[in-house]
Amino acid sequence: MSELLKQPVVKDVPPKGDDLSAWYTAVCLRAELVSYAPVRGCVVLRPFGFGLWENLQRELDARFKASGHENAYFPLLIPESLLMKEAEHVEGFAPEVAWVTQGGTEQLTERLAIRPTSEVIIGTMYAQWIESHRDLPVLINQWCNVLRWEKATRPFLRTMEFLWQEGHTAHASAAQAREETLKILDIYHDFSDTVAALPVYAGVKSESERFPGAVETYSIEALMPDGKALQSATSHDLGQNFAKAYDITFADADKTIKYVYTTSWGMSWRMLGAVIMAHGDDRGLRIPPKLAPVQAVIVPIVRSEDRRALEKAPALLAALQKAGIRARLDDRDQKPGWKFAEWEIRGVPLRVEIGPRDVGNGTVTIVRRDKRKGEEGASRTVPIADIVRAVDAALEEVQANLYAQAHEFLVSHTFVVKERDEFLERCRNRSGMIDIPWCRRSECEAFVKSETGATTRNLRPLDADARCVACGEPARTRAYFAQSY
Amino acid sequence: MSELLKQPVVKDVPPKGDDLSAWYTAVCLRAELVSYAPVRGCVVLRPFGFGLWENLQRELDARFKASGHENAYFPLLIPESLLMKEAEHVEGFAPEVAWVTQGGTEQLTERLAIRPTSEVIIGTMYAQWIESHRDLPVLINQWCNVLRWEKATRPFLRTMEFLWQEGHTAHASAAQAREETLKILDIYHDFSDTVAALPVYAGVKSESERFPGAVETYSIEALMPDGKALQSATSHDLGQNFAKAYDITFADADKTIKYVYTTSWGMSWRMLGAVIMAHGDDRGLRIPPKLAPVQAVIVPIVRSEDRRALEKAPALLAALQKAGIRARLDDRDQKPGWKFAEWEIRGVPLRVEIGPRDVGNGTVTIVRRDKRKGEEGASRTVPIADIVRAVDAALEEVQANLYAQAHEFLVSHTFVVKERDEFLERCRNRSGMIDIPWCRRSECEAFVKSETGATTRNLRPLDADARCVACGEPARTRAYFAQSY
Repeated sequence: MSELLKQPVVKDVPPKGDDLSAWYTAVCLRAELVSYAPVRGCVVLRPFGFGLWENLQRELDARFKASGHENAYFPLLIPESLLMKEAEHVEGFAPEVAWVTQGGTEQLTERLAIRPTSEVIIGTMYAQWIESHRDLPVLINQWCNVLRWEKATRPFLRTMEFLWQEGHTAHASAAQAREETLKILDIYHDFSDTVAALPVYAGVKSESERFPGAVETYSIEALMPDGKALQSATSHDLGQNFAKAYDITFADADKTIKYVYTTSWGMSWRMLGAVIMAHGDDRGLRIPPKLAPVQAVIVPIVRSEDRRALEKAPALLAALQKAGIRARLDDRDQKPGWKFAEWEIRGVPLRVEIGPRDVGNGTVTIVRRDKRKGEEGASRTVPIADIVRAVDAALEEVQANLYAQAHEFLVSHTFVVKERDEFLERCRNRSGMIDIPWCRRSECEAFVKSETGATTRNLRPLDADARCVACGEPARTRAYFAQSY
Repeated sequence: MSELLKQPVVKDVPPKGDDLSAWYTAVCLRAELVSYAPVRGCVVLRPFGFGLWENLQRELDARFKASGHENAYFPLLIPESLLMKEAEHVEGFAPEVAWVTQGGTEQLTERLAIRPTSEVIIGTMYAQWIESHRDLPVLINQWCNVLRWEKATRPFLRTMEFLWQEGHTAHASAAQAREETLKILDIYHDFSDTVAALPVYAGVKSESERFPGAVETYSIEALMPDGKALQSATSHDLGQNFAKAYDITFADADKTIKYVYTTSWGMSWRMLGAVIMAHGDDRGLRIPPKLAPVQAVIVPIVRSEDRRALEKAPALLAALQKAGIRARLDDRDQKPGWKFAEWEIRGVPLRVEIGPRDVGNGTVTIVRRDKRKGEEGASRTVPIADIVRAVDAALEEVQANLYAQAHEFLVSHTFVVKERDEFLERCRNRSGMIDIPWCRRSECEAFVKSETGATTRNLRPLDADARCVACGEPARTRAYFAQSY
């Protein structure tokens, strides 16, 4: 039997509204998504948590492949001398690098960095692989672990080692690199909307929030229940910075040798942290069906000697699984109420109950996790013959409702602000996404940060002439300000 | 366009029979499976190579899941003090460990090992997770990178960092752990036969070849064209050794506290090395269809102004892809002969040619990579309406034929030997798998090794009383001896 089914869930998750941080950690541990590891800053992704990651990976990977990208694998270790070639990049990452200095009994003459990201090693390979304009574009993605030295540990949000994907592409022109950067931003946006059920703001980052070595960084930003923003993925237009540092050139059609233009982009298991925090409630997780390792759990209800529900259940399981639904049967020797609570804490979108009365009537009862008990549409009784259609429909409803709830939250917590005092106050209070015309000056952003803790999340074009709400200088863009994870 | 299609292939692969080692390295590089990385001992798995790995992973993962296993992810780094708890294990792996000693600017007080394998970290977590007999068995697998300090580099066969899967299970009884160990051995055997098209010998390893810390190690062993064996996967019954070292206990039904029994098992990208070496020929790779990233490549043949084949080709591609065949269209502006050679070196199982005459006749010509030109069944012309059925059938034939050829080679290079002189001579000459009744004494194996370079590959029960062919002592088992990779 699976590891998942054998670990009873402790039910004392504190209410989400009281202390989001305590709720978050408790639910990650008690729903058995993760365990803390005996290595500082690291977590173990347990089977139920890894199931979320596998679904994210499958959905995103299909989108990358459909848009012409291929997967590859590059080495974990990067010689120090290579890492040092792009100045801004080094400055950005050096404080976070873990260094290998010994191999077996040998003391190394050159330290090896564990990759904090792979621009350096991939750029070095591209310099070898790319010769002619016919070799372009190169569109490669890698699913891997990376490591950034961290003191704090927060499951998914802040860990020393984490899992992610990093795409790295090379192009013949600046326009093509920019187009790629934005195409990927769209893929992330679509994934977030349609799979993670999480509406986000997509836009360009300010200079101070830009990736070290990038010309422009774009991001998608979700809003968490405590009014803090969570950057969920980034896409970087690297211009020719890495091409020049790592000597990635090509012979163009006119025979001249030119530097390529590169991009890089990534989504990590941080996205799962956003999903957990945005959708969960006091009873635990609420997982969007498209990400859920278990979409529907069948709970047979056995009363005294009447075990017919238990006998019926395997056929229901088989019918659902045959239809491609990720279903599971909980036939453990435990009380139904205990099972209900356990699967609720794990956020399984649907519970399919079958009791003695159902057996007599030829029905099952489908209960939605996204609704409260007694709420309209929270449960429905359907004929067994209809189970696949009914479960499919209910899964779609859950997916849509989680998105709608998160969208309502984002919209109602986005504030278009015109007054400086209100702006600073809302930044300080974590009201949500604070939307203002902004001057785009780093000094202005630094001032807001020191006063309130908020920074720009991302920017978009200005719709009309205006003054910066933060400092009164002429505005050059619109910006969402917020405190952030 | 894909990275794969843009990299022209250099065609000077030396004949396979002349120097297997030179052929192997050349074909790995020139078919763009791998590139050497600027880090000692490491290779980059390029998109075409990674495509092989993805197919291996999908096939094996499905088998693990069907047998009740779940995936998880454990940390890369292992504190030195944890690694030191299982004495044999430490002794086996310490010389191969890469050590992290610095994090950011901080000098660590305890070194961290990059995992050479994960028994230690997983055992530590199991000790926390497992409480009762109801928690057992725990059946977890992990796909990850591991690192073992190596001087030599040989793509897939010997690299410092490599990709693999490692399964780790815990059970209530010795019998259940042994059953799991053998079940996984069967999965590896089945994968090797039916996906990799590679017949192997499965059996138990001798004491000297056992995994450090195991009670028994089982392996599958393939035979390479130079008469050397290649261990392609291992499955370890760890008994209670790791449970005792890492204190993994459970309360049994009778309330007594007992140590669990654990297993571990792995297949790495080494398996791909075996596939490349066993099946390839003088023209390059021959990839079994079930592993091939591209199963059929469509090559339109354009003659002067007649470009009708090029116009027809996308519909053929769509038809094949719709049927679930991994097909690709090579519509580059290059001569057909150049394309044929390129896809041959990459080992794509089928080439689908469409030329001007085919367009007129409504046909295509399907050419099998596993056969030589002119050989019976090497090519067939079929109506376009029949293309899916014909390609499917031809893929099955290629898969079966590669297996049959490798099987014929294994059988014809397995020698049941009764005389000591012949035994030693065949071991020295790398005749193949040398099958003898064996005493099972480590001293005897050490002697054979020092005399000939050969060791036991794996063992199976003795069918009748006999004397050890190597030393004359009473035999206790049958053994395959061979030199090995």
